[in-house]
Amino acid sequence: MSDSNPGFVEPTGPAPATCKVVSAATVADKLLQEVKSSLQKFDRAPLLVGFLANNDPAARMYANWTEKTCTQNGFKFELREVDKEDLEDNILAANVDDNVDGIIVYFPVFGNRQDQYLQQVTAMNKDVEGLSHKYLFNMYQNIRFLDAAQTQKSILPCTPLAVIKILEHIRVYNSILPYGNRLFGKTITVVNRSEIVGRPLAALLANDGASVYSVDITGIEHFTRGEGIRKRQHQVHSTELKLEDVVPRSDVVITGVPSKDYKFPTHLLKEGAICINFSSEKNFDPSVKEKASIYVPAIGKVTITVLLRNILRLAENRRGTKQVEEGKSA
Amino acid sequence: MSDSNPGFVEPTGPAPATCKVVSAATVADKLLQEVKSSLQKFDRAPLLVGFLANNDPAARMYANWTEKTCTQNGFKFELREVDKEDLEDNILAANVDDNVDGIIVYFPVFGNRQDQYLQQVTAMNKDVEGLSHKYLFNMYQNIRFLDAAQTQKSILPCTPLAVIKILEHIRVYNSILPYGNRLFGKTITVVNRSEIVGRPLAALLANDGASVYSVDITGIEHFTRGEGIRKRQHQVHSTELKLEDVVPRSDVVITGVPSKDYKFPTHLLKEGAICINFSSEKNFDPSVKEKASIYVPAIGKVTITVLLRNILRLAENRRGTKQVEEGKSA
Repeated sequence: MSDSNPGFVEPTGPAPATCKVVSAATVADKLLQEVKSSLQKFDRAPLLVGFLANNDPAARMYANWTEKTCTQNGFKFELREVDKEDLEDNILAANVDDNVDGIIVYFPVFGNRQDQYLQQVTAMNKDVEGLSHKYLFNMYQNIRFLDAAQTQKSILPCTPLAVIKILEHIRVYNSILPYGNRLFGKTITVVNRSEIVGRPLAALLANDGASVYSVDITGIEHFTRGEGIRKRQHQVHSTELKLEDVVPRSDVVITGVPSKDYKFPTHLLKEGAICINFSSEKNFDPSVKEKASIYVPAIGKVTITVLLRNILRLAENRRGTKQVEEGKSA
Repeated sequence: MSDSNPGFVEPTGPAPATCKVVSAATVADKLLQEVKSSLQKFDRAPLLVGFLANNDPAARMYANWTEKTCTQNGFKFELREVDKEDLEDNILAANVDDNVDGIIVYFPVFGNRQDQYLQQVTAMNKDVEGLSHKYLFNMYQNIRFLDAAQTQKSILPCTPLAVIKILEHIRVYNSILPYGNRLFGKTITVVNRSEIVGRPLAALLANDGASVYSVDITGIEHFTRGEGIRKRQHQVHSTELKLEDVVPRSDVVITGVPSKDYKFPTHLLKEGAICINFSSEKNFDPSVKEKASIYVPAIGKVTITVLLRNILRLAENRRGTKQVEEGKSA
């Protein structure tokens, strides 16, 4: 055969397992380029103020990490360590300080419902984490702008947005489809339904057209815009489905279980599924690479980049509002 | 609600059915840009010679259409009408004529196995349709180059290649995955298993990592590179599966049934499936738009553009061979 066909390339036996591991750094670098280019429109380095009112070493570590990322990328960061009881007044002062572009509060502070109250004290137009009720309401209702003229984008919470940026990077979002429907046809399982990440993430993905199975220990809920994604926002239905029903039909599986002991049952994955872990624990064991086409083991670096992006977006929104107000008074 | 939230955008009720219809012209235009840019490297307009040895009006129409596309895009086309019995000699003359860059024979000529013989008379390095046995062999064996140094790409048959170019355009090929594995995780049903289009197409898609169900009236065959796409080329397995088993799990459905009466059962499609028809008959009725995320109703314009692309590739391959030979004799 080889003699009569000089161009014949000898087959080299079975290929190795084929899983592309995508690091958060790769995605973050691309986003940082965008951030840097937007930053050039600013006449001074934007200032992010972090409030620390606890002795939680994890919170301090996160604060240090935020500072490092800010200063490396042309942002200023100021950590203000205050007493629990003075926190509200300090936030209120930062709210009206024109030099402050973004505010982040390192929770837990009181460790109870008062923390949710404090979360809402931060001015909406400086809330880099996108946790103000209005932002959350818009997110769940699939309302993407703050104004009727659609010039000011609503802010999305950092971790769910980081997952979305990763899904865009790895082309799960199909850019050939219209904006807002780019996940149509995709089935996604999210293992985690916390108020901070899992539930908003499931809602965002379903609002973009995906059929989403949201899994936690109480059961599986189905988030979807329905047949032909004709509904303008997602609906949620309780199901009696089990993990073994939904995972084999899922194109993407996203995990965020905050436990060292938890390992996702990779034998349920369909061939060539895409797997993303946003937990700080490794929710997938190495066998994931035997099944997945793409595996994203962590997302932290993207989350912090998205935080910078939110600072810029807030600044742009504030500038827009100011122009409108100046226009009115002129 | 609206009063206290001035930015609130009123929901506007259920959205309309969401299916993006992609025309072949859009994909063809993009490919034509590439063709035009490659064409600038040539010192004269490449010449495609078409041989017509029958009175088939469809063949003549195709010839006219080829001529139009050639002349519109900087290629020369010459239709040589010859007697059946003189065809072989005429092909042989064109094979060795340095002015001829590509040869296309409009079949049927004898309408029997002699046509397959004639198909192999065209010199491999002028075979724009990619029907020489060596090209077909390479395609099925997943051998992508003609030479060990991998400088000369093997030629692919026009219609299957056109479908692939469309799948690339609509992002079914995931460019984040390594070349050769970009369909990993995708399930595709191809309704048609002709030697000209359906079987080569199923093989090409499976070689690129997809799990392909190839459907014809005799049954359904499964083309796949196996678990973890570890095999270096596809294998084929007969199945007892039915259309209602494979379509609901298919991300993409490709039809090519040459019959006015055939309509694909769209109720079997999964929500958001991608549908492509390469038959000149409309294999999907309008209900496809109620289910599909993307629908490509026809591919003809892409096929003819791919033909031009193959002419250029052949010319580049010939130039490469010449350089190697000149190098040897020097």
